[in-house]
Order: sequence, then C-alpha cells, then structure tokens
Amino acid sequence: MNMSRTRRERLVVIGGDAAGMSAASQARRLKGPDELEIVAFERGHFTSYSACGIPYWVGGDVTDRDRLIARTPEEHRARDIDVRLRTEVTELDLDGRRVRSRDLDSGAESWTPYDKLVIATGARPIRPDLPGADAPGVHGVQTLDDGQALLDTLAGTRGRRAVVVGAGYIGVEMAEALLNRGYEVTVVNRGSEPMSTLDPDMGCLVHEAMTGLGITMVNDAEVTKILTGDDGRVRAVATQDREFPADVVVLGIGVRPETALARAAGLPLGTHGGLLTDRSMRVRGREDVWAGGDCVEVLDLVSGQERHIALGTHANKHGQVIGTNVGGGYATFPGVVGTAVSKVCDLEIARTGLREKDARRVGLRFVAVTIESTSRAGYYPNASPMTVKMLAELRTGRLLGVQIVGREGAGKRVDIAAVALTAGMTAEQMTTLDLGYAPPFSPVWDPVLVAARKAAAKVRGSLTP
Amino acid sequence: MNMSRTRRERLVVIGGDAAGMSAASQARRLKGPDELEIVAFERGHFTSYSACGIPYWVGGDVTDRDRLIARTPEEHRARDIDVRLRTEVTELDLDGRRVRSRDLDSGAESWTPYDKLVIATGARPIRPDLPGADAPGVHGVQTLDDGQALLDTLAGTRGRRAVVVGAGYIGVEMAEALLNRGYEVTVVNRGSEPMSTLDPDMGCLVHEAMTGLGITMVNDAEVTKILTGDDGRVRAVATQDREFPADVVVLGIGVRPETALARAAGLPLGTHGGLLTDRSMRVRGREDVWAGGDCVEVLDLVSGQERHIALGTHANKHGQVIGTNVGGGYATFPGVVGTAVSKVCDLEIARTGLREKDARRVGLRFVAVTIESTSRAGYYPNASPMTVKMLAELRTGRLLGVQIVGREGAGKRVDIAAVALTAGMTAEQMTTLDLGYAPPFSPVWDPVLVAARKAAAKVRGSLTP
Repeated sequence: MNMSRTRRERLVVIGGDAAGMSAASQARRLKGPDELEIVAFERGHFTSYSACGIPYWVGGDVTDRDRLIARTPEEHRARDIDVRLRTEVTELDLDGRRVRSRDLDSGAESWTPYDKLVIATGARPIRPDLPGADAPGVHGVQTLDDGQALLDTLAGTRGRRAVVVGAGYIGVEMAEALLNRGYEVTVVNRGSEPMSTLDPDMGCLVHEAMTGLGITMVNDAEVTKILTGDDGRVRAVATQDREFPADVVVLGIGVRPETALARAAGLPLGTHGGLLTDRSMRVRGREDVWAGGDCVEVLDLVSGQERHIALGTHANKHGQVIGTNVGGGYATFPGVVGTAVSKVCDLEIARTGLREKDARRVGLRFVAVTIESTSRAGYYPNASPMTVKMLAELRTGRLLGVQIVGREGAGKRVDIAAVALTAGMTAEQMTTLDLGYAPPFSPVWDPVLVAARKAAAKVRGSLTP
Repeated sequence: MNMSRTRRERLVVIGGDAAGMSAASQARRLKGPDELEIVAFERGHFTSYSACGIPYWVGGDVTDRDRLIARTPEEHRARDIDVRLRTEVTELDLDGRRVRSRDLDSGAESWTPYDKLVIATGARPIRPDLPGADAPGVHGVQTLDDGQALLDTLAGTRGRRAVVVGAGYIGVEMAEALLNRGYEVTVVNRGSEPMSTLDPDMGCLVHEAMTGLGITMVNDAEVTKILTGDDGRVRAVATQDREFPADVVVLGIGVRPETALARAAGLPLGTHGGLLTDRSMRVRGREDVWAGGDCVEVLDLVSGQERHIALGTHANKHGQVIGTNVGGGYATFPGVVGTAVSKVCDLEIARTGLREKDARRVGLRFVAVTIESTSRAGYYPNASPMTVKMLAELRTGRLLGVQIVGREGAGKRVDIAAVALTAGMTAEQMTTLDLGYAPPFSPVWDPVLVAARKAAAKVRGSLTP
C-alpha cells in the first residue's frame, strides 16, 4: 500500500463564473471528493452565470435574473465544491502553493494551500479616467451585481434619456436594451463607425440600421467628462465639442484581463495583459497552475498571434479543458478564429477571422469582396437581405475572414466560415461546400458561397499575367 | 494568322434547367458569341427555374409562378444563348458529334452538330407501376408544368382529401403545402418512419411532429392500387390492407436519373443509373461531353462511393464547373457530403453525412450519440428544443454524420457539420470549434458542439482498456 495515495489533493479555483466553475465541475466529474477537494473563491454573490445575458435581462427579454444563473453556489456545494462567496483572493504564493483570501464582509484573512490552482479571475470593464465616471447613474454591465444596480437606477429614474458610451458588442446590445425599456438612446462612439470588430464599410451598415431604429449615433466622439447635477447624479456626457443630456449612462467600452494577482505573482502576461498558457491551458512554465476565461490571451489560428477575447463560449471551453486535465485526463484548446455574433433588434452582426487592418498588421496580402444576397430563396416569404464580406489571401486564396450584416438568418451563417477557417480552406474550396439548401433556408447558392465564388475569382484574376 | 481560329465552336446543351443553363451562362461569360455558339434544347416551356420551390408555390407561400424562374428563355436569348423550347433531344450520335431533336409541336426532326456537349437531362419522378397511377387527379411535382397541373386540379376539386404517397423531402413538403391549402392530408409511407434519409429514431421525431400538425401518417404501407371513380378520376389510394379516400393524390416517391439517351449512346452509368463523370464533370472517358445535375451520380466524400442526389444546389454547382471548363477555364466539383435540409411547417429537418445503415454498409464501425439542446440560450425568449444525432468513427473519432430535428434555427446548423465533414475533422476537434455565440443565437455550447463532446467522450470511452 502506498500511503501517499491516501492524501486528498486540493484544487483551488479563483473566480466562480464560467471558466472557473466549468473547470471545477469537470474536475469533479472525473475525480470524486475522496480524491480531490475543490475550493472556489468568488468575490461576488453569484456563480456560473451568463454575463452575456445581462443586456437581455436589462432590456426585459429575460425577466428573471436567476434564469441567467446556470448553477447556484448551493448546486455546486451539493457536488462537493466548496464555494466561498464574497471572498477575494488577495495574493498568490506560488512557491508556497497557497493563496491568501479575504472575507469581504468580515475582513478576515487566511491562507489556503493548494496542490493545483486555476486562475479564472475574468476581466474588468475599462472605466474611463474621467471626472464623473463614478457618479451615481453611471453603470458598467460586467457582472450580475452591475446589472442589478443598473436596473435599480432605471427603476428610480424619471428621465428617459440614456447615453451609451462605446459601440462594440456591449454598447450595441445595451442600446437595444434601453430602447426596449423606452429610453431615448444616444450612442457615443470613439470610432468612425460602430462595431469596430468589423471593417468600417460593414460597420456603416450597422450605423444605418441603428439610426433607422431611432438611436442617435455619434461617431468619432471622445468622451471628455461626465457631468453631474447638484444631487451628484449624472446629468450629461460631454465630448470634445458637445454635451449629451443623460439620466443614465452605460459604459460599454470594453474590458481588460483581470490579472493583477497574476502579475504580482510574476506569472507570464501577454501584450494585451492576459495570462499566457499552453494548449492544455496551463500557465506557461507552470506545471500546477491553469488559467482560462476572460483573464487569458488565446492564440488566433488565422493570424498566429495572441489575442484577448472576453467571451463566455471560450471561457466554458477553457474550463472544460482545464477540468479534464486537472482531473487526470487529456484535453487541449487549440485557439480561436475570432468568431462573434450579436444583434441590435432584428439586425444580425457576425464576424470571424481577420479584418482588413488585422491582415495588414500581420503582413498578409489579400483580396476583399462584398456581396449582397438573401437569407432564403429570393421568392420565398421573408427572404431578407444580407451583406457578406470575405477576405482571402492573395495568391493562395486561403480564407482569412468573413463579416456578415443582415436580418434573421444572417448571424449564424458565420459558422460556415468559422469551420472553414479552422480547417484552413481556400475560397475556391469553399465554392463547392455542400451546405444545406431548400428555399425556406437559403438561396440555391448560399450567401457565403456567393462571397466565396467572388473571392476565388478575384484571387484567380490577380494571378493572370 | 491561324484560319482555324475563326471557326466558332458550338456548344449544345440538353436540358434547360439549373445545370444546363448554369453551364451555358458561365460558358457565355467566358466566351463571347463570336467564339462560342450555344444551343440549348429544353423539352418543356421554361428554363432555369427552381423545382425546389414548387411545393411552396403549390402551398401558396409563393403566389406567382414566374418568381420561381431565375432566368427566362428570352433573357437567355438576350445573352446569345439559342434556347429551343418544346424540343426534345431523341438521339446522341457521339461519333458524329451531333444530336437529333424533335420539335414537340410540329413533330419536325433535325440533327444539330456540336463541338462540345452538355447533358443535363435531369431526373424523372418514379411513378409506381400501379393500376390508376396515370388517372386524372394523380400528380407528380417535378416540373413547373407538373405544378401548374396540380394547381389546376386543386382549383377544380371540391373534395378536400389529399393523399401524399411517399414521405421523403417532396412528400413532407407537399404535405405542408396541401395542409396550407386547407386539405385533410394523409401521407402513405413505405418506410417505418418518414424521412428515410434520417435514421428511424430521428425520423420518429418527424412523425410525431407531423401527427401533431393534424397530418395522418401511415407508415409501413405499400400502395397497391390507385382507385378511380366512374368519371375516371382518382377516388382513393389502396394499400395492402386499407383504402384512403382521395380527391387528389401527389406522388413524392423519389426520382431517378433521366439517362435513357445517355444509355442508348453507350455512355457510362453507375449503379444508381446516373451518368459517371470525373471531377471536371466530363463524362468519364469523354473529352468533349460533360454532364451535371440530377442526371449524374456524385462522389460521396464520406463513404467514398457514388450516390444519386437530385438537388438544385448541386445542379447549379455542376453547371458552374462545366461552364468554366467549357469556356476554357479550370474548375472541379470534388463531391458531396450529403447535406439536406427541409421543413414541415415550423419543424426543421437536416442531415449530412452517413446514417447508421450507410456506415454499416461501407463497413465503418462507429459510435452514435443523440443530445437535446436549444436553438438559443435557454433563458432567451423563443429558445426552441433541438435534437442532434452524431455519428463518429470508432477509434479515430472521424465525424461521419449529423442529423438535426428541431424548430427555428435547427436546420442550417447542419452546415457546421457539413464543413467539418468536408475537412475530415474528428468529433474531438469539433468540440473546440469557435462558433458564433450570443444568447439570441445559441447556448454557450452550440448544440452541435454538445453532440461533438458526447461523441468524442464515447470514442475515448471505447478506447479504454
């Protein structure tokens, strides 16, 4: 008998949302409580919730906050995961294999030893370093607590003027949410078009659609100050040349990896501030420390460079991979192609792969084509227009990226390109893809194939002597 | 100067629908009328129409027949394509490089020489060799002429009882169409479940949904006779043990390649009766004869065997490839993975790759998994249930096939699997695919990924000693 096998290992997880709790749950599936103790520290009140669902809760599509919670602390505890809420990890002692934590209510501090550590500290919203940015009525929407605070503000505010700062995913989704709540919505955007994850020519289509919905779009605008009234509450958002009256302000200007702990402990961070891992999601150079979710950088399989993408679907996959490896199995996360999909009312917006500027930045020469098509056969009821842009590498024809803006049926078509990018297909190869066709589902040439044909022709054209 | 270059070549196209006219149009794009003369023979009254749209025209979703016509004979003629309607090609003289045709109205016959020949004769519906199968009120729905005849019957029939024979794509689509027209619909089906292109456990879901729509489903039933009344019109469909009263009967029992001409000319046919071509869509062994669309067999990239699939999307791709090659360019059609999508009212049905019996037939050992998920995040409004079945090869984990039955958002998800099959991905590789995620579009794990996870786990489980 080997006495050492009787000692239980302890897994410590920092962060109780998607990546952390997916890792904990998967590890638990593979190892029972007699083999593995699992302790999870979470700063907030909730576990395993869908931060991506917050705009739809705020907008009223989802009426019950608890429906955003995939698994409560009690449910995790029932599976022998020791969830410690309102407990912030304040220090990592990697040499000593322990973490220091503070109970946010009592202030009590203690050290917890670990055998294996998972860092899933997520991201924090970028808050502009501006006068008034912390005034009452100014909200981020990163956590369920944030969402509740915003809903409380909306319930207590008579005025109906909302300003959203930022026009990325969170910005456009929050614009829809506030529109649904009956607000007059102004979106103040630093870029030349909304959705800077698209090329400007595609972002322009989003701009037009949002204007059509009655949203006031202010592009090329830098917020200089958030103005408050005599009561200390927000009253307007100032840009370099104008003021926009506001009864409520939502900040949707993106997030940064929350890696202060990791940085202090000397763990490797990338150029975007995220933890760097290998494909097993182990922190590089560490055998017993994993990291996943919004606090890590991921390999972009198209550009070959690391990126920071805060997205629940990646966090869940990371957690699954980490939990499998922690639990003694074998799994890898190879990277991403940069797929994202969103909507503003009935406008669907999708992208995958590289934008023109991404391709240029990594030194790729490319062709870009844009086509118009429809979601269904043109003669079928409710066939709606769709614009597809495709980038392919010059000479080789390798698919580099796809962007789609349209109505119902547009968004998820990006998956075709996402799989093709992962497989390294060329535009030419894509032209004969055997995609699902019937008049209610697609024109006889799917819009993505129409784009592929045009891109392939342009690649060939560029070869002609 | 080379005098021979002044002689125009003549391309003869047999069949004026998707494959033939796509080929003609693409050839014309590449070669002007001074270089290439194009003659197209079409037996019917129409060119370039969507046969796939006929059920929606019959059902009333499409009100104007002409909307199903992508390009009229006049439009083709305006691009210097000499379309000869109501003209049937009756003989191929391959050694003499000429075709004999008959004007169906005048009965006049003539020979037309060609330099290049495209055979796009399509498919003909299987008509059961039964008493009464040609009675008034019994209709196929293969051509626009067929659709018009059926609509004329519906307009002239007081009774509201319709029997659809066959429960494949055409059968279920016609059941919906007749239901929409206010008919009491009975579907008589030889198989144990409708949609024999699915495994029976998935077909069963279609059965349940169709029953729920008020359609009477009769499985395991062989039609023995079509009974007529004193007026000679159809009055009932008889099976081995019952009679189903019918004011109108629609035959949707599949199609066979229309290759009588090719067979008589000694061209190579496959086991399904379709013409055999190489990847350039040239008829095997022939330099100057191409074939495409419903009259050819295509390579199934998953099984490695030839199949016959009558589908407009393939016909258009074939035409594009043929036209490019005829026009002096270079293009190939590598094959299919067997993707198909359809719907009955709001039930979406999709499949790609191999069914269990296909996999067994080609000697593949596999795992099969079935999962339930939803089209959107579970908490998002109108998240609808979806069943995904996945087959993966034992040991290697190679994806073999996917079947999906669900509501809105289910059908086109099959494209993810179609691209993955084309790329030869394993279920394990699919688990980390970077698919579009946002709550209105997908759960955080797309249903196809949930199936891939379960399939990958089962493949791994089968490896455990």
